[in-house]
Amino acid sequence: MRPWSIEFRGRFEETVFESAALKGNPLGDPYRRPLWVYLPPGYDESGKRYPTVYQIQGLTGQLDMWRNRAPFRKNFPELTDELFSSGGAPPCIVVWVDCWTSLGGSQFLDSPGTGRYHTYLCEEIVPWVDAHYRTLARREHRGIAGKSSGGYGAMITPMLRPDQWGGFATHAGDALFEVCYLPDFRKSARALRDHYAGSFERFWQDFRNRPAFSKDSDGHLLNDWCMAACYSTDADGTVRLPYDPATGELIPAVWDRWLAWDPVRMARDRAPALRTMRAIYIDAGKRDDFFLDLGAEAFRRVLAEIGITDIFFDLFDATHAGIEYRYPLSLRYLAERLGSESETSPGG
Amino acid sequence: MRPWSIEFRGRFEETVFESAALKGNPLGDPYRRPLWVYLPPGYDESGKRYPTVYQIQGLTGQLDMWRNRAPFRKNFPELTDELFSSGGAPPCIVVWVDCWTSLGGSQFLDSPGTGRYHTYLCEEIVPWVDAHYRTLARREHRGIAGKSSGGYGAMITPMLRPDQWGGFATHAGDALFEVCYLPDFRKSARALRDHYAGSFERFWQDFRNRPAFSKDSDGHLLNDWCMAACYSTDADGTVRLPYDPATGELIPAVWDRWLAWDPVRMARDRAPALRTMRAIYIDAGKRDDFFLDLGAEAFRRVLAEIGITDIFFDLFDATHAGIEYRYPLSLRYLAERLGSESETSPGG
Amino acid sequence: MRPWSIEFRGRFEETVFESAALKGNPLGDPYRRPLWVYLPPGYDESGKRYPTVYQIQGLTGQLDMWRNRAPFRKNFPELTDELFSSGGAPPCIVVWVDCWTSLGGSQFLDSPGTGRYHTYLCEEIVPWVDAHYRTLARREHRGIAGKSSGGYGAMITPMLRPDQWGGFATHAGDALFEVCYLPDFRKSARALRDHYAGSFERFWQDFRNRPAFSKDSDGHLLNDWCMAACYSTDADGTVRLPYDPATGELIPAVWDRWLAWDPVRMARDRAPALRTMRAIYIDAGKRDDFFLDLGAEAFRRVLAEIGITDIFFDLFDATHAGIEYRYPLSLRYLAERLGSESETSPGG
Amino acid sequence: MRPWSIEFRGRFEETVFESAALKGNPLGDPYRRPLWVYLPPGYDESGKRYPTVYQIQGLTGQLDMWRNRAPFRKNFPELTDELFSSGGAPPCIVVWVDCWTSLGGSQFLDSPGTGRYHTYLCEEIVPWVDAHYRTLARREHRGIAGKSSGGYGAMITPMLRPDQWGGFATHAGDALFEVCYLPDFRKSARALRDHYAGSFERFWQDFRNRPAFSKDSDGHLLNDWCMAACYSTDADGTVRLPYDPATGELIPAVWDRWLAWDPVRMARDRAPALRTMRAIYIDAGKRDDFFLDLGAEAFRRVLAEIGITDIFFDLFDATHAGIEYRYPLSLRYLAERLGSESETSPGG
Repeated sequence: MRPWSIEFRGRFEETVFESAALKGNPLGDPYRRPLWVYLPPGYDESGKRYPTVYQIQGLTGQLDMWRNRAPFRKNFPELTDELFSSGGAPPCIVVWVDCWTSLGGSQFLDSPGTGRYHTYLCEEIVPWVDAHYRTLARREHRGIAGKSSGGYGAMITPMLRPDQWGGFATHAGDALFEVCYLPDFRKSARALRDHYAGSFERFWQDFRNRPAFSKDSDGHLLNDWCMAACYSTDADGTVRLPYDPATGELIPAVWDRWLAWDPVRMARDRAPALRTMRAIYIDAGKRDDFFLDLGAEAFRRVLAEIGITDIFFDLFDATHAGIEYRYPLSLRYLAERLGSESETSPGG
Repeated sequence: MRPWSIEFRGRFEETVFESAALKGNPLGDPYRRPLWVYLPPGYDESGKRYPTVYQIQGLTGQLDMWRNRAPFRKNFPELTDELFSSGGAPPCIVVWVDCWTSLGGSQFLDSPGTGRYHTYLCEEIVPWVDAHYRTLARREHRGIAGKSSGGYGAMITPMLRPDQWGGFATHAGDALFEVCYLPDFRKSARALRDHYAGSFERFWQDFRNRPAFSKDSDGHLLNDWCMAACYSTDADGTVRLPYDPATGELIPAVWDRWLAWDPVRMARDRAPALRTMRAIYIDAGKRDDFFLDLGAEAFRRVLAEIGITDIFFDLFDATHAGIEYRYPLSLRYLAERLGSESETSPGG
Repeated sequence: MRPWSIEFRGRFEETVFESAALKGNPLGDPYRRPLWVYLPPGYDESGKRYPTVYQIQGLTGQLDMWRNRAPFRKNFPELTDELFSSGGAPPCIVVWVDCWTSLGGSQFLDSPGTGRYHTYLCEEIVPWVDAHYRTLARREHRGIAGKSSGGYGAMITPMLRPDQWGGFATHAGDALFEVCYLPDFRKSARALRDHYAGSFERFWQDFRNRPAFSKDSDGHLLNDWCMAACYSTDADGTVRLPYDPATGELIPAVWDRWLAWDPVRMARDRAPALRTMRAIYIDAGKRDDFFLDLGAEAFRRVLAEIGITDIFFDLFDATHAGIEYRYPLSLRYLAERLGSESETSPGG
Repeated sequence: MRPWSIEFRGRFEETVFESAALKGNPLGDPYRRPLWVYLPPGYDESGKRYPTVYQIQGLTGQLDMWRNRAPFRKNFPELTDELFSSGGAPPCIVVWVDCWTSLGGSQFLDSPGTGRYHTYLCEEIVPWVDAHYRTLARREHRGIAGKSSGGYGAMITPMLRPDQWGGFATHAGDALFEVCYLPDFRKSARALRDHYAGSFERFWQDFRNRPAFSKDSDGHLLNDWCMAACYSTDADGTVRLPYDPATGELIPAVWDRWLAWDPVRMARDRAPALRTMRAIYIDAGKRDDFFLDLGAEAFRRVLAEIGITDIFFDLFDATHAGIEYRYPLSLRYLAERLGSESETSPGG
């Protein structure tokens, strides 16, 4: 009943997934995770196999947030069902994966700072989905999409595992780290000085004991630490910051570890993997708060340099917030590109 | 399973309420509304009657938004259950009422511009709840609470119906209209000039055909129109704006109609009703975006003028956003004040 | 030598004017005031009489500020000389009058709160200029211009003294007081609460003993008090605020005294005076910080209502700051309109 | 006559200095420059020699701006005279040097992108001042001070020429370039994309043909280009940007050229020069718009690392703007430190 809900014509199956990879993760975060699988209208009757699109979330995202209601809007599960119900896109299975951590997120990487989320996603979730649903279980028919850090994960996961993924979509994905991350280090340094005697430990102690994000600096501080936990943590779990917390001065050796995970830099080294992609969708708001429109453009330019130009690319008029209405565009794009050739092939 | 959910120890009953009062409402909005009733731990076994606290929402609120997840936080249903599960407050029945309209809200009033939401709340929902649950069905044990426009409704509903309500809580409730509404009229006037050829009709047409709140001026324009629909609509449905949309110049005759609904002004005329209240809770963030901290203080001052000083009052360090962690404070306050004397009285 | 200066072709005469009207002013401000008279190229040789345009300043303006240098720009004295040197406008005498007070300004009014600045301007400065320079000493050839509070003075002085003034120019002049002043009252109320225990006296004590405008709230507080000193001060010098400083609640009786000085309201009552004007120039930035573009439009609409449409009107893309490049436009407009018919008439 | 002026007790001598070093500068900027010398009260009578403090300006500064009047404040020339008139500091000669360029400034360096401003300052101005005034013409008695880019010049000039300078004062001086410059590159990239088809040439064409700084992006674009003209211009005059103007991606080879001019990095390599300084004054506002408080702290830390701790250091509550009230503090500090030992020595 609108606006409180819609009548779903497809079906959500909700599972709690027990991850071996996440057991004993360094943060002590749950290894049992919610997992949603959306089956499009007709799935039960068709007997067909379907392409699969995985959806991952941005920093601080946890699976239930997908159902958050914004005023006068539908949420993404509703938009998804509308897309497939209306025939706006070829039918797909959509999988919603939770990679939340108590630092905010995982960047969908394996890191001694957070846990083995790349392994969990690629080695556990994907096979389980393929085993339990009628997917077209080949890279050509498997895509991944997300926004912000989710867009990051959508870019780098297929670069790391081109054998597994055939397409991706990034909405305002983290890229060009000197543009999207570095400028806020100084805000963190100042906040540490003014409120936390220079100590991240004090920040976390404060942050954990009051309503989260009730201080302006929370976002910057959490982001810096979480990214360091993902990008630059030593094997023994020591989180290395890429800047001196007293001044914001860059520490080149650590910063280089971050840059090694920058999709713009990674793409330059992974041309062969990228050239195999059947679908690449890139967008961002031209007023994105973190200037991820510039990251999108930089990523596009690298793709062009390595000869990849058959992509979707759009910079539109928006900030970083409230752009879930873009997700059906990428979902349709992936559905069309990843399903087209072999959708009816029974063997997938 | 945290952080995705909690184990509820109380129970939510979800109903679709068919309102006679809302049938044929001028906006064509649904007259079937979701309604939630929370029954505290022990309800099923106790056989007791309980005080009741009604929860209403701010502008653009619709019932399912109560379950929105903010990062690292619990939502209000979860906080409610925690409060009562932990024994942090005497048990209460909590009722979550939906007064959404397609203009954003209703201010919990009867208006030819929106519909008969005051009647719906007081004449339909309350009796239904009393008929279906073991409430202490007297004013002394019935309270109402809300934030923003919900705080407004929580202030004015008991003033209008002191026979029905014995207490209320306002979190940053709309009050002192020259402070909370008037200053933004000029922003609307400018937006109308720059984007809509001076016409609210064009605004609505635009607003309805793109993602809501994707333009900065949406909030101001929607608010002004919706409040006019609530406060200054003629019997024939003509919405009267309190300002010239070309310039922002105040139209005193219409503005006076608004002021007649200002809780600060209403309170001056309704001292007897207010003096019967057993619980009055007022708070607001000192950096409230709409300066509702000043409205809170003005309301407090009127109460003091008419001799009411046994209240809860707190201005705290926050903006208008993200203050759901305050709601358990008011819920406890109301639970304590509205239940104390006669909680065990079987007749309610 | 540019960019440090230009070679002036006209001439500035600088005087210290001793004002009888300002002697014993209630603020103890100087009654000796700087006065500048600009004589256009050819003045010394021509023997002609010239129209005169008076220039007045915005709040906190003092005469020497006209020479402030903004990066890569000329100041208004330089722009003035360029205008007349290049033949861009018919020659004029330009008079720069100082109406500064230690509260910020005078609004060019006589008030027991500040002093007799209207008298000083109209009864002292104008006759002195006419006596000492070859002016066309009639209303038809006398205009006045300013920005912000100077624009206010330029609107209201000719309305009060149409016998003396034949034209005016307002750049972002104070008008439509509920739009330009009222919205900031709440900011003052909050600042008083948070920093000054609710007391304007404490504000002034603080303000006088540290670098001026080093706190964000200084501007609002100074403006409110100064305007009250100009618009709503009792005969005995008691400054009446139009709002309760504890809450921002409007005090209608005092607010009405303010509105009586609003150019938009004044214009409605002074149609005959306005109809005699030979030149009316109105502009404002469409992003004016104080929304004086809406005041400009409201003033324009009143003029249209009373039949005055042969005016200059332009809303341009700018904020309230840094619009001195517009002043030559109004100066040319006034020079053309006020000089045209009788410039060569030796009797003026 | 206050507030329009003060009665100076010392004396300003204003000269036009013809610079050989600036003749034929690549920007075609004037080689004749204004120069002010302030002689303290008693200079004419005393026959003594005095220490000298040079004052240099921030980006876009030109000499006449020192006299700009801010509301209710004195300007720095007035503050200087007050300081010495009141005996608040030992008498000094103060020299105000103009290093303006049509790109905004010179960073007080010799660069093929702007001209030989370091040479002009050190090889021309200083000797001329020593030849024309009774200075104590040795490094021990010569200091330099400035704000923002002027603070930068005050830091690096003595590092480059410790034989000439014995002390310096930096108010919010440019330092820690990844903190003060880099974060705004992305704003420039976006502005270039949105308004200038990616071309700095188009920016300059636009900028030169309208009121300067009437667009929000002007400051960023001008700063980036001007700094590149100062820090990373090839011998043939080619200005090298440290980032890709299409994306903001850093170009390490050029960025390293910038870092070579970062006072924080320079200080690490120039410990011996810095250890000879008799006076080092560092301050910045804790809310500095360019985070130069972090640069100040980083510079202080390097000084401490190389054993220099006898300095003045203060972070105070302010932004980058309107801090001229701090200048007398540094002037007094330099006057005391640079004059103390040998002030009366006739040979200087």
